[in-house]
Amino acid sequence: MKQSLGARTIIVPTPVWVIATYDEAGRPNAMTASWAGMCCSRPPCVGVSLRKATYTYGCLLTRQAFTVNVPAASQVAEADFLGIASGRDTDKFAAAHLTAVRSSLVDAPYVAEFPLHLECRLLHTVEIGLHTQFIGEILDVKASPEVLTAAGLPDPQRVAPILYAPEVRRYYALGEELGQAKMVGLRLRPVPETT
Amino acid sequence: MKQSLGARTIIVPTPVWVIATYDEAGRPNAMTASWAGMCCSRPPCVGVSLRKATYTYGCLLTRQAFTVNVPAASQVAEADFLGIASGRDTDKFAAAHLTAVRSSLVDAPYVAEFPLHLECRLLHTVEIGLHTQFIGEILDVKASPEVLTAAGLPDPQRVAPILYAPEVRRYYALGEELGQAKMVGLRLRPVPETT
Repeated sequence: MKQSLGARTIIVPTPVWVIATYDEAGRPNAMTASWAGMCCSRPPCVGVSLRKATYTYGCLLTRQAFTVNVPAASQVAEADFLGIASGRDTDKFAAAHLTAVRSSLVDAPYVAEFPLHLECRLLHTVEIGLHTQFIGEILDVKASPEVLTAAGLPDPQRVAPILYAPEVRRYYALGEELGQAKMVGLRLRPVPETT
Repeated sequence: MKQSLGARTIIVPTPVWVIATYDEAGRPNAMTASWAGMCCSRPPCVGVSLRKATYTYGCLLTRQAFTVNVPAASQVAEADFLGIASGRDTDKFAAAHLTAVRSSLVDAPYVAEFPLHLECRLLHTVEIGLHTQFIGEILDVKASPEVLTAAGLPDPQRVAPILYAPEVRRYYALGEELGQAKMVGLRLRPVPETT
């Protein structure tokens, strides 16, 4: 028998991604978001939901662009700080000793110290309620060379992303590997009947 | 210097959530999705992107409802299988030895063996490209009593969700706790100037 917990945003996991933008004056800003996820393969798109009250909301609408930056577990204090302070009254890059690098593809900066970045142009804006969802087309993914495997893809354990559990408000590291997709479930396929 | 990887869906982590629906004939179906994330706090909403080619796509549009089910790390084979087979030609619940329980709130089943469920009614449909995003309003969250803490919230480490890294196509467990949100970053707040 399952227990009812009500109409709440209880789920695990959500990502801890840092959304970076320029404001109207050209100052870089960054905020942490967890209401986010990939949402399309072609064109490659990521969706990020923001409250209108955030400083990033206006920046993103003005510039029609943003980057999604994946901080590493060792950078959890920086990631958390970027979700506490507001760009309205704080230079968050300076306070967190982070470097804003201008994207050559979109009108937004990325966070140099973080290992993985998605450079996005705004494609759709979806009004949902307290949050507005911004769907960005990923024009390029950039990564620190030290997180790449020999095959040239980011190794998830070297990126070492942060996971978040809302409601209990706790951060977690990525754990052990559980197996290869489209492989570990093959044994459950029904055996074809012989005729 | 960052390395460019191209316009691709490279990110870590994405969730491994199982979307359950009834088809037109009333048969339960379930598929694994990773292009998904929470997208609004009020009303509480979750977004899930599906390709039109999936069997779930039609079920969800017909029934205007779905559940999001969080499988545990010990259920990675079942979760993977639900992403390999199609409900068009396979009774996936039977093949994976899973039980469909009818939601009392929405016209969709949930997967009894999984520890956490979100019961959703379809609120918005967003055409993006290869994927269509379905935004569901969460009408209730249900959990297995054994994953709940004394405070009545799911303990992320007892739920033991599965994370996914697309492109390298690997599953991961949730790792160690890294700290409390709105706490671990406080030390980076600029010190107010004394006057």
